[in-house]
Amino acid sequence: MKRFFTIVLLLSLTAAIPGIHAEEGMWTYDNLPIKDIKEKYGFEPTKEWLDHARLSSVRFNDGGSGSFISPNGLVMTNHHVAVFQIQKLSTPENNYVDKGFLANSYDEELKCADLELNVLMSMENITDRVRSAEKDDMSPSEKLKAVKDEVAKIQKEEKEATGLRCDVVNLYQGGEYWVYRYKKYTDIRLVMAPERMAAYFGGDYDNFTYPRWDLDMTFFRVYEDDKPIKSENYFKWSKNGAKENELVFVTGHPGSTSRLYTHAELLNDRDESMPRNLDLIDYFIKTLKDYSAGGEEQARRALTTLFYLANSTKARGGMYEGLQDEAIMKKHLDEEKALISKIKANPEWNKLYGNAWDNIAKIINDNKEFSLKHFYRGIIVYRATSLLGKALSFVRYAKEIEKPDMERRNGYHDTQIEGLKFSLLSPAPIFKDLEEAKLAAFLKFVIEKSGKDNVVEMFLQGKSPDKAAHALIANTKMNDVNYRKELWDLDPDEILESDDPFIKLAIKLDPVLEADKDYYDNNIAGQLKEESVKIAKARFAVYGKSIYPDANFTLRLSYGSIKGYKMNGTLAPYKTTLYGLYDRALSFDKAEDFNPPQRYWDKQNKLDLATPVNQVSTNDIIGGNSGSPLINKNAEVVGLVFDGNIESLPGRYIYDMEANRTVSVHSSYIIEALRKLYDANKLADEIQGK
Amino acid sequence: MKRFFTIVLLLSLTAAIPGIHAEEGMWTYDNLPIKDIKEKYGFEPTKEWLDHARLSSVRFNDGGSGSFISPNGLVMTNHHVAVFQIQKLSTPENNYVDKGFLANSYDEELKCADLELNVLMSMENITDRVRSAEKDDMSPSEKLKAVKDEVAKIQKEEKEATGLRCDVVNLYQGGEYWVYRYKKYTDIRLVMAPERMAAYFGGDYDNFTYPRWDLDMTFFRVYEDDKPIKSENYFKWSKNGAKENELVFVTGHPGSTSRLYTHAELLNDRDESMPRNLDLIDYFIKTLKDYSAGGEEQARRALTTLFYLANSTKARGGMYEGLQDEAIMKKHLDEEKALISKIKANPEWNKLYGNAWDNIAKIINDNKEFSLKHFYRGIIVYRATSLLGKALSFVRYAKEIEKPDMERRNGYHDTQIEGLKFSLLSPAPIFKDLEEAKLAAFLKFVIEKSGKDNVVEMFLQGKSPDKAAHALIANTKMNDVNYRKELWDLDPDEILESDDPFIKLAIKLDPVLEADKDYYDNNIAGQLKEESVKIAKARFAVYGKSIYPDANFTLRLSYGSIKGYKMNGTLAPYKTTLYGLYDRALSFDKAEDFNPPQRYWDKQNKLDLATPVNQVSTNDIIGGNSGSPLINKNAEVVGLVFDGNIESLPGRYIYDMEANRTVSVHSSYIIEALRKLYDANKLADEIQGK
Repeated sequence: MKRFFTIVLLLSLTAAIPGIHAEEGMWTYDNLPIKDIKEKYGFEPTKEWLDHARLSSVRFNDGGSGSFISPNGLVMTNHHVAVFQIQKLSTPENNYVDKGFLANSYDEELKCADLELNVLMSMENITDRVRSAEKDDMSPSEKLKAVKDEVAKIQKEEKEATGLRCDVVNLYQGGEYWVYRYKKYTDIRLVMAPERMAAYFGGDYDNFTYPRWDLDMTFFRVYEDDKPIKSENYFKWSKNGAKENELVFVTGHPGSTSRLYTHAELLNDRDESMPRNLDLIDYFIKTLKDYSAGGEEQARRALTTLFYLANSTKARGGMYEGLQDEAIMKKHLDEEKALISKIKANPEWNKLYGNAWDNIAKIINDNKEFSLKHFYRGIIVYRATSLLGKALSFVRYAKEIEKPDMERRNGYHDTQIEGLKFSLLSPAPIFKDLEEAKLAAFLKFVIEKSGKDNVVEMFLQGKSPDKAAHALIANTKMNDVNYRKELWDLDPDEILESDDPFIKLAIKLDPVLEADKDYYDNNIAGQLKEESVKIAKARFAVYGKSIYPDANFTLRLSYGSIKGYKMNGTLAPYKTTLYGLYDRALSFDKAEDFNPPQRYWDKQNKLDLATPVNQVSTNDIIGGNSGSPLINKNAEVVGLVFDGNIESLPGRYIYDMEANRTVSVHSSYIIEALRKLYDANKLADEIQGK
Repeated sequence: MKRFFTIVLLLSLTAAIPGIHAEEGMWTYDNLPIKDIKEKYGFEPTKEWLDHARLSSVRFNDGGSGSFISPNGLVMTNHHVAVFQIQKLSTPENNYVDKGFLANSYDEELKCADLELNVLMSMENITDRVRSAEKDDMSPSEKLKAVKDEVAKIQKEEKEATGLRCDVVNLYQGGEYWVYRYKKYTDIRLVMAPERMAAYFGGDYDNFTYPRWDLDMTFFRVYEDDKPIKSENYFKWSKNGAKENELVFVTGHPGSTSRLYTHAELLNDRDESMPRNLDLIDYFIKTLKDYSAGGEEQARRALTTLFYLANSTKARGGMYEGLQDEAIMKKHLDEEKALISKIKANPEWNKLYGNAWDNIAKIINDNKEFSLKHFYRGIIVYRATSLLGKALSFVRYAKEIEKPDMERRNGYHDTQIEGLKFSLLSPAPIFKDLEEAKLAAFLKFVIEKSGKDNVVEMFLQGKSPDKAAHALIANTKMNDVNYRKELWDLDPDEILESDDPFIKLAIKLDPVLEADKDYYDNNIAGQLKEESVKIAKARFAVYGKSIYPDANFTLRLSYGSIKGYKMNGTLAPYKTTLYGLYDRALSFDKAEDFNPPQRYWDKQNKLDLATPVNQVSTNDIIGGNSGSPLINKNAEVVGLVFDGNIESLPGRYIYDMEANRTVSVHSSYIIEALRKLYDANKLADEIQGK
């Protein structure tokens, strides 16, 4: 989800104040509501407990979460987080997505193409230093640049001092800056994955719903120097899982929320961004379905992207429904009004912050046209084919790399080159026919929606969209990792002299995109930052730090308890059992999406059908948290978080404590499945510490 | 539900026009949309098919439906229809509600206290004759009286001519009058009932929801002359039940819908009747829960009424939500506007019918105060204790019986005396402590809501509500069936001289209630009838007979097909299986309401867990249809209707074809349970014709 929303989020760097409810909150590790937890559950996490939980948590930079669950670098995440890597390891002959995978020894573990995992080693508030770069006589865009330069400098210093990946992150919509220092791992190997139909039982229908019966798990192992690492911090396994009403935590990386949006931004989401994005996703799905209809291998190639899109459209559909809900909109507006009235009541605050909400509404309104143009341009440049993205990276690398580090564009600083290389030289397969189908389709879509402009003409070069796409794709070698390796080893000048059609296109596009970016920084981003920082300061003035920042794929801890809820006229139970999996399969006569792998029928007699399968808890999560462990107060794994229920989708904007639930795979089902369905006793022993 | 709404319905004798959707419709047997059925499903029910289905259908006058399913008078209905009779047969020592019941031979079958079953032998349109009683120079209330007298006359003639129970029924809100001729049975014996927790698994939580796993069945046998009848018409049993998408019919007795309401009536329901009734039911539930808390036996005595009330509050809650739904209200208003604009476009029609909608709105508005008073008065007179209702019947019987038949009040004509006696002399137990608790509570409720008036004072006689209730109940013998038998055998004068406190109260109340009735007839009912007949005629003028009349507990046929639906973000399957029952039980750790009888655990190994348990179909039903058979085109039983899903509740006012579903027990589950859980092979053999 994170990647998909990059452009949309440009207009969203602002702040409001949510009503904090019991158990709401994706808390940073430095600012937990420990008093509330203790009062409600009689448990107070210590510094040691928190350090251990943090160091056992893993970020999947593909867009998910995970955790160490053995001393030998074993990492657990969701199948739906891992599936993009599993797909890259698969071939028509060895389709691990369909058939699952199990390594019986280290030797059999499969190295991922381009998976990076991060562990948060430490973090530090550097707000004062970042702010000190801004001088009073600077314009908003000059301040923006000053901050960016300072951030680049800090990241470089930090990297040199610690050897870690050091990211400066912005919390509370500009209210705070922190440096987050990550241990980075890039040799990640696949250990075990079930068949997709075990992981994703119920398919897109059951996605974001509950009751549910999914084995949404995958195991990887982290290597360094070609050996499994010794993971000092890891979560032990709970013997029986959690009881109803038991306190549980989720430690993971929620991707993005918009709870601190101003109401003007919410309305912009409802009326502009959201319908536009839903429209795009629909079109993308249609395009890939047409392509998939070409044959079994085409269907295999498009499967994971289609899966991702179906997920997106359902998630966004739920968010969009939330935005249409008058009660939700009114609640948000009331909360904003309450904050504003507190600010207006204090003359000093009013002078400093009072106009920020109106100013943000004006910035959004004044830039609707640019924003629309930017949206459609972004589609053909960044989403139609990854080949152009790679070519743009090569071109920018070539232009930037010989400049002094601090003068380069963001993304091309010394500290960032290693990551760039890792991504550009990924051996993951790229299928030319699929890239061509997407490029042709998106060109048509953008022309229909937004007409032909100079950028579209750069793609078309006088041809029809189909012919233009064919010409570009047929003649490129950008899909070939060996060609990209050759390019990487060339001198910058030589890269720019490549006759690859995508390199040539990227060279033409780059100045136009740079001009867009300059326009954006000078006319939108600088001003937005000013105003959003005002609101952040206003919020701190009124509420102090009793609030949590919007999610931004940094590590968060959420607390809650195992609990069912009222659903569609009845109760959803706190857990499901294996009986229910067979019920649901047979209720649909094992129709597609409701047909578990054959082993579920062959080995049914071995199973204890009373085994809990999935469970729900009141933890506050969102996309990006997928793969997070659910742990008890002893920091033992009691579940594997893989979804939010449908009622949680408006949680992007507003948390509803009555019905918002986190859905996780029960720890007992993981062991039951590994031992009795997958004959993976060795892995189960490692997990259970036997 | 039917009984509870008697008073509310007084203001509802009017007409509008619904939008007819595919598969919508509770059709009378004389006016089926045979062409639509044939076009959609390729099946055309013949006259023989319809006669057979009609004569195999049974009305449970307690408020439900049923059917003959063997040649020996075996009748199937729901447990929740039968439970009031089962309760009457139970004692603290033999609690058949909790423990179930099975007769292994005719000898062991238990005769019900006061159950009357009806079979519709024939029906005839007598609109012209009824209308001919109205003369042009009569006032609306004179016309109303003329019609009532004519109806009484017809019923008398019909009874004498046929020996059957002959009811004149009003269809299309006064648009048509029919005589419905019923064969009446009053010797009904209990054959088999499962435990309440098998029938009602999931309890009030799962009531009106789906997926579901209920064995909501009970079997009775019809006797005449102390022998099982030979039921010539009965439904055979389907071997495997119906397939997904297969055509299925429901033949049964839907109690009451309001789809032909004018919009003014709908608004009156939303703003007046519905909140008032929900308030009353809540209070009633609270009263009975307090009483139940007194001990195990108290809980047993109140159980079925509490069950009935919980059902009502959930059903009405769903209807009330429908009334709050702007889309539903708009649809209703749009349909009314469409009909009115067609009427207005034709000068003749406009002159005849054009003002009816406004007139009805005015009648409702002018009589709000009377209606409110009437509502609260009705509570203490008819709902607080059945002892007063019995006393009122005795008093009225004594006053009317010596008048010439045609001069008596409705309810006391010669043709009605047999039914009156059957009801008054029922041996069903009545518990004084329960009656006293109810009476005291309702007196308080009505005083709080509506103050003390002359009627309330007749109850109180200067005492507090508690003391007044105690005085009445302590001194009455009306609870004793032997005393009622004595009363029945007295001369009318002697009855009126009884010193039973309820007889004395009834004597004082009767003239006041009669005056209310006269006021109602003269000032409301006559005018409402005039206007509603206008709308009925308007509707026939525009739409002909392509429409069906609102439900009124007459026999109807609904067609549809077995089909799942979209639910809460995913799909509800067309059926459930026994696996799911165990899942749901264990998902709640066998908590109350989710704990099936012990035999489900003891005999689990015998069961085929893939057996379908419940299923959903698109048939259009409502309360009163409970116990109807679901039959296929061969008129074989494929299910036993017991519920509508939660999405169907606004169906009282508007049918929603996407999500409205009928929920039935699958025919295969009934056999599986009888044979393997209840060791009732003899009964299963009879049902399956073995």
